Amino acid sequence: MNDVTGILARHIVDSRFADIPQNVLHEAARALLNCLGCAIGSARQDTVENALSAIREFSGPAQAAVFGRDERLDALNAALINGISTHVLDYDDTHARAVHPSAPLWPALLAYAEWRPTRGADLLHAFVLGVETECRIALSVFPEHYDRGWHITGTAGIFGAAAAIGKLLGLDEQQMRWALGIAATQSSGLREMFGSMCKSLHPGRAAQGGMMAALMASKNFTSANNAIEGERGWAHVTSTRFDPAVITGELGSRFELMSNMYKPFACGLVVHAAIDGCIQLRNEHRLQPQEIARIDLAVCPIVMELTAIREPQTGLEGKFSIFHAAATAVVFGAAGEPQFSNAAVRDERVVALRRRVHVAPDAALKKIQSRVTVTLNDGRALTTFVENALGTLARPMSDADLEAKFRSLTDGILTAAQADRLIELCWTAADLADGAEIARATVPR
Amino acid sequence: MNDVTGILARHIVDSRFADIPQNVLHEAARALLNCLGCAIGSARQDTVENALSAIREFSGPAQAAVFGRDERLDALNAALINGISTHVLDYDDTHARAVHPSAPLWPALLAYAEWRPTRGADLLHAFVLGVETECRIALSVFPEHYDRGWHITGTAGIFGAAAAIGKLLGLDEQQMRWALGIAATQSSGLREMFGSMCKSLHPGRAAQGGMMAALMASKNFTSANNAIEGERGWAHVTSTRFDPAVITGELGSRFELMSNMYKPFACGLVVHAAIDGCIQLRNEHRLQPQEIARIDLAVCPIVMELTAIREPQTGLEGKFSIFHAAATAVVFGAAGEPQFSNAAVRDERVVALRRRVHVAPDAALKKIQSRVTVTLNDGRALTTFVENALGTLARPMSDADLEAKFRSLTDGILTAAQADRLIELCWTAADLADGAEIARATVPR
Repeated sequence: MNDVTGILARHIVDSRFADIPQNVLHEAARALLNCLGCAIGSARQDTVENALSAIREFSGPAQAAVFGRDERLDALNAALINGISTHVLDYDDTHARAVHPSAPLWPALLAYAEWRPTRGADLLHAFVLGVETECRIALSVFPEHYDRGWHITGTAGIFGAAAAIGKLLGLDEQQMRWALGIAATQSSGLREMFGSMCKSLHPGRAAQGGMMAALMASKNFTSANNAIEGERGWAHVTSTRFDPAVITGELGSRFELMSNMYKPFACGLVVHAAIDGCIQLRNEHRLQPQEIARIDLAVCPIVMELTAIREPQTGLEGKFSIFHAAATAVVFGAAGEPQFSNAAVRDERVVALRRRVHVAPDAALKKIQSRVTVTLNDGRALTTFVENALGTLARPMSDADLEAKFRSLTDGILTAAQADRLIELCWTAADLADGAEIARATVPR
Repeated sequence: MNDVTGILARHIVDSRFADIPQNVLHEAARALLNCLGCAIGSARQDTVENALSAIREFSGPAQAAVFGRDERLDALNAALINGISTHVLDYDDTHARAVHPSAPLWPALLAYAEWRPTRGADLLHAFVLGVETECRIALSVFPEHYDRGWHITGTAGIFGAAAAIGKLLGLDEQQMRWALGIAATQSSGLREMFGSMCKSLHPGRAAQGGMMAALMASKNFTSANNAIEGERGWAHVTSTRFDPAVITGELGSRFELMSNMYKPFACGLVVHAAIDGCIQLRNEHRLQPQEIARIDLAVCPIVMELTAIREPQTGLEGKFSIFHAAATAVVFGAAGEPQFSNAAVRDERVVALRRRVHVAPDAALKKIQSRVTVTLNDGRALTTFVENALGTLARPMSDADLEAKFRSLTDGILTAAQADRLIELCWTAADLADGAEIARATVPR
């Protein structure tokens, strides 16, 4: 275990497409669809606009699409901006224990595919290897690294992007070591930034920096050989604990991508179980807001620590209000971005109903659980228990759920036909002769 | 002292050119001359070539010069490449206790000046503020931050570049806070990389990343407000010690730039005292190698820990050979890059003489001291004691020394007339209506 960087580099270099099981490839396509929906849906966010206006004058040739927008940038800058837009809503995928896997990867991979012809199968393969790299490196120092204050999606994500792009570039083992090393020495991102635009800058910089690391390594720009595990390597400098076996164990047989989760609702995970229960009761009983006397929620105590805003004034505050979340879910039967807009937070029906929401913390409940009781004006009580919120590993979003989420996010930006086509491209990505078709199909025109 | 980032941001924003003393401005011009010599002299190094070939296809408009070369890049990529070339020989300036100040700064500042018309006085002013920012932030966590494994020229340099470019952009106080925050969350660079090309990547990325941080802040891309001192801010995440008073004390009256040093010799500092003594004796006595029976060096013990290679085979190994350093100094009367070339290491006169060099560690001597005794074939012994090696604060290189170093480095790349002109531009930088003249004058054509 003295040469973790070398073992990992060799694995990435030696891996063949045929080594990746079908279910893992399908999960990669699911991640792609979810990623593109998030990025396209965020294409006009202030965070994206501000970043774009800062770099636009410096961008190189129009090599790659900005997802959901008409302009094109050089591939490195496209990776940056698309990494930002994928994460800005915090609606992108989440590994069960560590990073947001897609935001540092798909933006780099699709930018690469527009720059150099790349088969869809190779994109999926590189993505799988990128996820393994970033998640394993993250988990090898987790949670100590995160507890110290590092935003692990940025700090570990850059390794994933370097591995994925390095695979497409066909790096040899020595070059792949360098790519991981150049990534290590650019790794950054502070949790102090949470709540500011910099949170989504982190995966953007990871995508761009990792891509640059691989490009530099392909030109024989050298780094230390043991950048991860070396005496002054990344793991020891950024964490008090490092378990190299997490990186090298079961390489090629255990796939961290199979622990990837997708958010069905556009807010923090702790509110999902309550939303889930509300939507279930609403749909089952065709509930109308005006017939509801009160809604009682039993939830894990942490819910009221994080989301106790009673009268949110903005969409963003609505995401931190269990009261709004439950009410908007019952009124609209959904909890996507539109249900957390400023308009939704001020909607009279939602405001009236959320004042009839009552929350009881229950230490017996987990974060992903809730008990929802809706009492009607006629005195009837309807109740449901959510054991595993939708979107958790035990109850993943279906492919159809992911398609519906994608359509909701891209509505008003892509036409229905464009959305259909992009969904189809994601599901058939492994068969595409030209992976860049996916990137081009994100553009509204 | 609860708002270090705010105090620093306010100082940078409020500072006026008239606040900077003349001697500080002259030191800025000295740093500029030294920086450009190093960068131009390194313009064809493999490290620079490899980095350039990786990013060339992605570069934007031809906004800014690559020092010492004909091609032009967008301003952000020019800052990157010129930051690399400034540092690659490890011949650039060194603050007495912390960072290499110029490499993250002048490349960004001159790239900026080519992009947006900037007076020379404003460049010097911004440089001074950048040095204060990066050195004070570095010293506030030094040496613990460095001991943990961070290459402080990269990690602190990015703050300097953000401050300097932010000043030129005319950021307001809130934007300057954001610029420092966006810098903080991109701060990176591992000492593990020493000995590889990544060492000089660090100031390059600092120049580029800091410039980008300021540009993003100018477009209201937000960060945390207390990125340096916050609970999960840069200082606490990357160091076990943080002294905020080092950052805020005597702002505007104590100038860290006055502790800047320039290397007269193209190798590690610990060898400088011996070289200095050898050159003194050579010049004073017009020594010829063939009349020398032996050279005895008494040096600080660390010299033999770091530079004990007896028979170096390459120029790079020559830099880690006290034997070669003394011999080449006597043979050539200098110890610049040419004296540490592969050819110099294999020069018969040097090889013969270095085998007659004897080294005695002496714990009573400091790193910057040496006692040199040259015994001639006729039995005469010539001796000198170097109390402070040339280039240290107590015995700085003169302006003429810096000019000679610049000419040596740029010889064969710039014509003598071009070198004269660039030297003149540096000394008169404060009077230049268009600071970009300096950048353009680095190009050989």
